[in-house]
Amino acid sequence: MADTLKRMEKVLILFQDGSEYLVRLEEKKLHTHLGTIDLGELIGKDYGDVVKTSTGKVGFILKPTLLEEIMKMKRRTQIVYPKDSSYIALKLDVKEGDKVIDSGVGSGAMCAVLARHVGKTGKVFAYEKRKEFAELARENLREWGLLDRVEIKVKDIGEGFDEKDVDALFLDVPDPWNYVKVCWEALRGGGRFAAVCPTTNQVQETLKEINNLPFVKVEVWESLFRAYKPVHERFRPVDRMVAHTAYMIFAVKVKEKEARI
Amino acid sequence: MADTLKRMEKVLILFQDGSEYLVRLEEKKLHTHLGTIDLGELIGKDYGDVVKTSTGKVGFILKPTLLEEIMKMKRRTQIVYPKDSSYIALKLDVKEGDKVIDSGVGSGAMCAVLARHVGKTGKVFAYEKRKEFAELARENLREWGLLDRVEIKVKDIGEGFDEKDVDALFLDVPDPWNYVKVCWEALRGGGRFAAVCPTTNQVQETLKEINNLPFVKVEVWESLFRAYKPVHERFRPVDRMVAHTAYMIFAVKVKEKEARI
Amino acid sequence: MADTLKRMEKVLILFQDGSEYLVRLEEKKLHTHLGTIDLGELIGKDYGDVVKTSTGKVGFILKPTLLEEIMKMKRRTQIVYPKDSSYIALKLDVKEGDKVIDSGVGSGAMCAVLARHVGKTGKVFAYEKRKEFAELARENLREWGLLDRVEIKVKDIGEGFDEKDVDALFLDVPDPWNYVKVCWEALRGGGRFAAVCPTTNQVQETLKEINNLPFVKVEVWESLFRAYKPVHERFRPVDRMVAHTAYMIFAVKVKEKEARI
Amino acid sequence: MADTLKRMEKVLILFQDGSEYLVRLEEKKLHTHLGTIDLGELIGKDYGDVVKTSTGKVGFILKPTLLEEIMKMKRRTQIVYPKDSSYIALKLDVKEGDKVIDSGVGSGAMCAVLARHVGKTGKVFAYEKRKEFAELARENLREWGLLDRVEIKVKDIGEGFDEKDVDALFLDVPDPWNYVKVCWEALRGGGRFAAVCPTTNQVQETLKEINNLPFVKVEVWESLFRAYKPVHERFRPVDRMVAHTAYMIFAVKVKEKEARI
Repeated sequence: MADTLKRMEKVLILFQDGSEYLVRLEEKKLHTHLGTIDLGELIGKDYGDVVKTSTGKVGFILKPTLLEEIMKMKRRTQIVYPKDSSYIALKLDVKEGDKVIDSGVGSGAMCAVLARHVGKTGKVFAYEKRKEFAELARENLREWGLLDRVEIKVKDIGEGFDEKDVDALFLDVPDPWNYVKVCWEALRGGGRFAAVCPTTNQVQETLKEINNLPFVKVEVWESLFRAYKPVHERFRPVDRMVAHTAYMIFAVKVKEKEARI
Repeated sequence: MADTLKRMEKVLILFQDGSEYLVRLEEKKLHTHLGTIDLGELIGKDYGDVVKTSTGKVGFILKPTLLEEIMKMKRRTQIVYPKDSSYIALKLDVKEGDKVIDSGVGSGAMCAVLARHVGKTGKVFAYEKRKEFAELARENLREWGLLDRVEIKVKDIGEGFDEKDVDALFLDVPDPWNYVKVCWEALRGGGRFAAVCPTTNQVQETLKEINNLPFVKVEVWESLFRAYKPVHERFRPVDRMVAHTAYMIFAVKVKEKEARI
Repeated sequence: MADTLKRMEKVLILFQDGSEYLVRLEEKKLHTHLGTIDLGELIGKDYGDVVKTSTGKVGFILKPTLLEEIMKMKRRTQIVYPKDSSYIALKLDVKEGDKVIDSGVGSGAMCAVLARHVGKTGKVFAYEKRKEFAELARENLREWGLLDRVEIKVKDIGEGFDEKDVDALFLDVPDPWNYVKVCWEALRGGGRFAAVCPTTNQVQETLKEINNLPFVKVEVWESLFRAYKPVHERFRPVDRMVAHTAYMIFAVKVKEKEARI
Repeated sequence: MADTLKRMEKVLILFQDGSEYLVRLEEKKLHTHLGTIDLGELIGKDYGDVVKTSTGKVGFILKPTLLEEIMKMKRRTQIVYPKDSSYIALKLDVKEGDKVIDSGVGSGAMCAVLARHVGKTGKVFAYEKRKEFAELARENLREWGLLDRVEIKVKDIGEGFDEKDVDALFLDVPDPWNYVKVCWEALRGGGRFAAVCPTTNQVQETLKEINNLPFVKVEVWESLFRAYKPVHERFRPVDRMVAHTAYMIFAVKVKEKEARI
């Protein structure tokens, strides 16, 4: 059974030069460097179908993934990259029904991944102290159909979080070391903590705080993803790659300090 | 509200030397190199609580994550590592309600991650031609509480898959190039394909097939994860790391070949 | 004792915006985006001295390193990068008095590193079948003061090399597998072989040949160099890096095939 | 012309299981897990020749490279690995006739690479405050035939170096930040500086000092070398690799501070 495309459906139109357009299907024209497409005429077609522009150029109608939406969204902040956010969600063990905290929410990239994982029965409490970012995140999460799982709070976390006994907590702020204690307080026993920082100095400061509180399984990781040219006769890595996004810090809350590992 | 531990609950007991034991709470003794623990006495405690062995050594009661279960499971096959499986699930855009294929299922490590993502309303069709591995995967998935979302099929995929129009398909077999066509047939238009291979020769052969069929957005990636010593005064990478797990191949199905990118 | 700069000395002028100019000191003007410098006036100054442009911008007079000359040279070919060439020279154990072969010489980047290592008493036999590249390499090596240690030969190596019993041989051609045998013939017993290839397919073909001949200690390596921002309060890797230059293949010639490792 | 092996020549005997023995040729027996070899009988043979043990196992007679000697030497300290030392020597532009400082010398691994590069007409001034390491380095350098190019000084560098106007300086001590100033004083204008540190904290402290002095072109690098299995039908990286050796810091001395980049 094919997915017949409906009005206002969001699609990704991919051209043979690799350019992509993320649009909703409605009666208007999409103007591209490869010609014009009447988007209304795509209603009733299916994903995977071919579409031709006014100049005869070939495009493909694809269903955008969350990853593609994240990479193309309006953003005003540095985001957690999918290579890191997917791993963090697995390390935090976020799953259907979980209650998790995301702070600060920024443009909403990590929040969206967490919201995917908690499912319809879970909840992400998303803190952001800058009102304009909270609004941007709200807009992005609504666009991705995930807003009903997220409660956005415009609030400084200096006084702590409103929730107690959350399953997992993700911290992405410029000075994470100042909030490790309130994170510990918000987590349930055995709850999973993760933070990201771009610099080694931030990691050092944050580790110092973590190692002073009842946390175990403290780990720091970084990931490098390298793309290859997908040509079978000349298979080799591409010439350049992302060298750094962030260091990922992980820890697990336990109840007593004296017995720390 | 704390999680009071019940009989037969599965817990991870972590000792201060980093050793871990994955056990169920019942009236029996756990014998470790650090002394004995009466598991029945842990019933009624909470995650994050401290437990002492017969010799006074301190352990912590943790809730095992899926990642920890995967890394500690009985396995007879090479598994897809969490660093790769989490990224693949995001690239495949697997989400609540999706129908996806996992072939071959092996020990079930990737299947579990996919099952997490499809939620209670989705389904993973898991193919495995070797009966003993299918049974092992079944046992592992039951242990992880994910078996109800998975339909395990002991079957050679040479003749193709039973399903049509699946949202995503993951292929992990020694000769993926022989099955690219049946994968294309099983996917819906715009459906997402991923495969893993340890060697460059396998990637080359597989790319050759993919590039002969109506697939777009063909990508190959590899990931390197490096751990750091979590010591704030001497923050540095560890001495050794995993150098290679597998190359990840991605592609998206479109309907017509002529118009290929 | 300072190095007083003489007429026609080659210097690197570095400005505070990081831009660099490689020039010889003579009575003429250097026009830069930061103003003009009268190069003749630098004669008699020392390395490390400050120079000011017509607009008052500050530059530093540095002595160019071979590495800097290589990275700034006129080139018409892909070069072996310093991160690889320095390691290859050490693996090949090239030292004063050695006789080594470099084929094909290309723009001369690897040849220069080898020439440095053989010293005044050694010799590099540099093969290149394309006359224009041989001339370019000759020009570059003369510029770097290394031409007297290099014998450039415009010749196809299909029939083999003129030399026998060379200590080491470096091969950088598009189809290395076609020349492994003539390389073996040119090396002395225990002589060291190295080749570079950008693609995995080339490595595979070359390994096949090497493993059919009396070579031992066959190794393949790749190197990744990552730069960090040199800021002490925010120490972190740069955002992007080189993902790939070439695979490096190493082997050692032994005399008999049957006894191969 | 073949190299006929002489009495007391040092050779590397490689067996087909990859095991290696570094020995001198004299009238005595080498006992290995693969049988016995009468070393005196190898005199008169050539490099690359095959040798058989008392039990008929095959070995190859190779000429050890400096890299192999370094990796097999007696050591009591962490060494600078060849992957780093070769690059550092190129970045420092060490060449025939140069005067360079190596401090602290440790087991002599970096010193040997520098000594190779300065040739017979250059000199390495090697500082080491711990007498027993200085003796070990002396023994190693003598063994490698490089001692005549090195002047070993058992001395604390707190008061500075004896030399002025050296071309390059390599610093490998636990607290490099305490010696950046004396390094600057010892270098000629435009002289090249390099240091290695295992931790990010050390790099941060050292960068702080460097950025307070008249240095330009301040860079920090790290290198990752990954080996591949040399099998042409299943070409892939090995399973595990070295994750970290040291961060490499580079800078160039200029004369005036105010004009710093």
